[in-house]
Amino acid sequence: MKRLCIHTITTKPWSTEECIRNYSAAGVEGITFWRYSLEGRDPASVGRMAREAGLEITSLCRGGFFPGRTVENRQAALDDNRRCIDEAAALGAPLIVLVCGAVPGQSLTESRKQIADGIGAVLPHADAAGVKLAIEPLHPMYADDRSAVNTMRQAHEICDVLGSPAGVGIAVDVYHVWWDPELKTMIDLAGQTGRLHAFHICDWRTPTSDLLNDRGLMGEGCINIAEISRWVDETGFTGMREVEIFSNRLWAMDQSEYLDKITAAYGEIYS
Amino acid sequence: MKRLCIHTITTKPWSTEECIRNYSAAGVEGITFWRYSLEGRDPASVGRMAREAGLEITSLCRGGFFPGRTVENRQAALDDNRRCIDEAAALGAPLIVLVCGAVPGQSLTESRKQIADGIGAVLPHADAAGVKLAIEPLHPMYADDRSAVNTMRQAHEICDVLGSPAGVGIAVDVYHVWWDPELKTMIDLAGQTGRLHAFHICDWRTPTSDLLNDRGLMGEGCINIAEISRWVDETGFTGMREVEIFSNRLWAMDQSEYLDKITAAYGEIYS
Repeated sequence: MKRLCIHTITTKPWSTEECIRNYSAAGVEGITFWRYSLEGRDPASVGRMAREAGLEITSLCRGGFFPGRTVENRQAALDDNRRCIDEAAALGAPLIVLVCGAVPGQSLTESRKQIADGIGAVLPHADAAGVKLAIEPLHPMYADDRSAVNTMRQAHEICDVLGSPAGVGIAVDVYHVWWDPELKTMIDLAGQTGRLHAFHICDWRTPTSDLLNDRGLMGEGCINIAEISRWVDETGFTGMREVEIFSNRLWAMDQSEYLDKITAAYGEIYS
Repeated sequence: MKRLCIHTITTKPWSTEECIRNYSAAGVEGITFWRYSLEGRDPASVGRMAREAGLEITSLCRGGFFPGRTVENRQAALDDNRRCIDEAAALGAPLIVLVCGAVPGQSLTESRKQIADGIGAVLPHADAAGVKLAIEPLHPMYADDRSAVNTMRQAHEICDVLGSPAGVGIAVDVYHVWWDPELKTMIDLAGQTGRLHAFHICDWRTPTSDLLNDRGLMGEGCINIAEISRWVDETGFTGMREVEIFSNRLWAMDQSEYLDKITAAYGEIYS
């Protein structure tokens, strides 16, 4: 189970406390919290509970959604990202994953500009809190309303525009980028520039019945996960491999059996 | 209705004869036949019927699906593409649109090699028949089993590998490529190289409920159709603008009312 981290949303039916207890008991090494997992709880206490259970806190998901039609919309996003940074600091999460946002009908170029501006605006707050930010390029099928950053090249370009601050990097999720012919080149570049901040795994099912919630467990789909993982490791990355799966089908399972499947699937690839 | 072409699959509930009669009556200028529209019919007679109704035959959809795990699979694809070419010639369609194919779990690089090989293998047959071929880059959400060609750059690369034959070009469908940050550059290149063979329009709905059959009518979504059309026209392209919409929702409508909506939506953009 070396370097295995699980996102709380992967086992969404479980409470935060069940995630911590069950991941820990299964020998999982890391946990990434989704913000809903902190609702009604003290982030510092949740963080302590996770660490006491032997789990490393990998990141907090998710900040972002910077673009907006109006100044007020964009200001509200900045405020929310600052709150997210405060939560991450209290939790003890060293990293926030950014789903950068998009506004249907607004040009993607304009949205990317607003994203760069937004990250730049909250970066001092993140730096002061000791929390890094990772731009997660999202699959082009989410370019309408979730992210105008759809390739690793675009994520690199935003890092460049910001002047390559140490506090901003990239989260590589195989689901979003596996199809990209530039993937290996862009992972290499992320390694060289110190931008490879997170690595997420799951699989792409054929057919895929839902754009959001039909991801596959590793091995259920067509993604060359082992190969991409090798590319990531070859950059010197030694961080967690984070299992992030949204799946109505898998959420409907007994979650303990599902956790067994996750650890087995992980072992298949990384043993 | 200048330069308006409709794909028969757009009004799938209609028979081939109804498509011809109703498009013609609505003042539509062109028709693209899907192969199923020729089933049980003589392609030459269908072509004659369309021309007599005043319709220009824009293309035949679709050839392709070249990749396969075995030599036998790939040979079967070549045979089918040659039959498709014969049908296009009989129909009087100057162009075949290629959905190039992919095999889940086979590397996209290998599939693209098989695609280039496949196009090269059938090209002499197409040249002899006077039929051109257009590589249609498909959205990355179809990279698992429909096409390993997911960007215009990749389509250009295949044309390059083949030695830039005049008989092979690119079909630009806004649904597949609207998100691509290189889109304008690649359309310009297609113009400069004489590869811009076809232009398809529809829209991307938010949310999209189905990966295949939830396309929008122009105006129902977020795609910058007018802007992309301008880029296309600026290359000197004077061909048809082809409405190709797969939609369970729109197929469930009265198709005459739907055709009115199509011509109205077209007029909104191009008047």
